[in-house]
Parts: sequence; structure tokens; C-alpha cells
Amino acid sequence: MPDFHVTSPAVPLPKMPTQLENAMDTLIQVFHHYSGKEGDKYKLNKGELKQLLTSELTEFLSCQKDPQLVDKIMRDLDTNKDNEVDFNEFVVLVAALTVACNDFFEEQLKNTGI
Amino acid sequence: MPDFHVTSPAVPLPKMPTQLENAMDTLIQVFHHYSGKEGDKYKLNKGELKQLLTSELTEFLSCQKDPQLVDKIMRDLDTNKDNEVDFNEFVVLVAALTVACNDFFEEQLKNTGI
Repeated sequence: MPDFHVTSPAVPLPKMPTQLENAMDTLIQVFHHYSGKEGDKYKLNKGELKQLLTSELTEFLSCQKDPQLVDKIMRDLDTNKDNEVDFNEFVVLVAALTVACNDFFEEQLKNTGI
Repeated sequence: MPDFHVTSPAVPLPKMPTQLENAMDTLIQVFHHYSGKEGDKYKLNKGELKQLLTSELTEFLSCQKDPQLVDKIMRDLDTNKDNEVDFNEFVVLVAALTVACNDFFEEQLKNTGI
């Protein structure tokens, strides 16, 4: 009778995604949740962008009093001027906001001397 | 006796962060978990970058066979040439990888005709 030493499963178990992989996946899922609502489902029109900002970046928007803000963000992000925001343009917004949050976080760490 | 109609708590309850805010926070926490290990605690040196890539981007690295990959990524990201990667440089990597994942995801959606 053969002597089987099974040290790993015959079919590899799928790896659990890491925290960073989960975060990257969230950016993709959140974008498509809103971009898929109407029109081109791979791009955010102004209404979809506004919904995304209002629902997903509530802390950021709550400090902003400018009623033209969504228009301004749309203009800044829409680098190819098609009046819509694609995923690449959206990631630029997320990156810029995350860098701003990190600057604030590092400043706090430096002030507390940790 | 006064008639109190309490419709909201006296002290506002802290809002739960949204999925997107959590994802942005994760990028910051993951970066600082590795950058804080040695040397300048706000920057990744080559060893810290390698640890971060190996532990947090396992799926991405598992497809790569190039033994010089970490050196190449370090060279590409380190735009200010101080031999370290700061948070702004790190976000560029995450953004580029997420855009690549999204391209793949959109291609799959288009092929399945959903």
C-alpha cells in the first residue's frame, strides 16, 4: 500500500486577500457601484459623481461649504474633457485626498512626538 | 414641566466611516506599519518596501519572476532620488496597480456582456 505523505492539499486553497488588496478592490467596487447607475456604465457622469461624493466621502464633504464643489471637482478630474470621470481620473482624486489625509496624520504624529 | 422632544442625542454620535474612507485609511496604516520599522519612520527603505510588497501584494508578486523587481520598483517610485519611498510615491504605485486591476475587471465585464 502506498505511503502517502499529504503535506498540502491537492487543490491549492485560494489565498485570503491582504488588507491592501482588499482596499484596492474596494476602490474598484465603489466606483462601479456608482458608474453603473446610468449612461456609460464605466464612467461617472456628474450626477453619479455627486452621489459617490455625498455617500462615500461624507467627512470630506461635510467640511466643504462651496455649492460649486462638485462642478469644480468634475472639471479638475475630467482631464480628457468628455464631461465624465473614468476610473483612472477617479483614482487621481482618491490618491490626492489620501495624500492630504496622510499629511495631516504625519503632522499629528510629529506633534505628539511618537 | 417642560416638554422635551429629543430627536437627536445631545452629543452627536461619531459617524461610521464609509467603505471608501476605510480603504483610504488602510493605505495610510499599511504604509506606516512598514515605514516605521527602521530609519526614517515616514519613508520606506528598500528592505521595508520589499517586506510590504511580499506581505501585502502577494498576488501581484506571485506572477512576477524577475529577481530585480523590488530594485526596479524602488527606482521607478523614488522620483526624488533619496533611495527611499515616501507616502506620495507609494500612492502612485497603488494607483497604478489598481488601474491595472480595474482594466482587467472591466475587460472581463465586457467579455461576459453584463
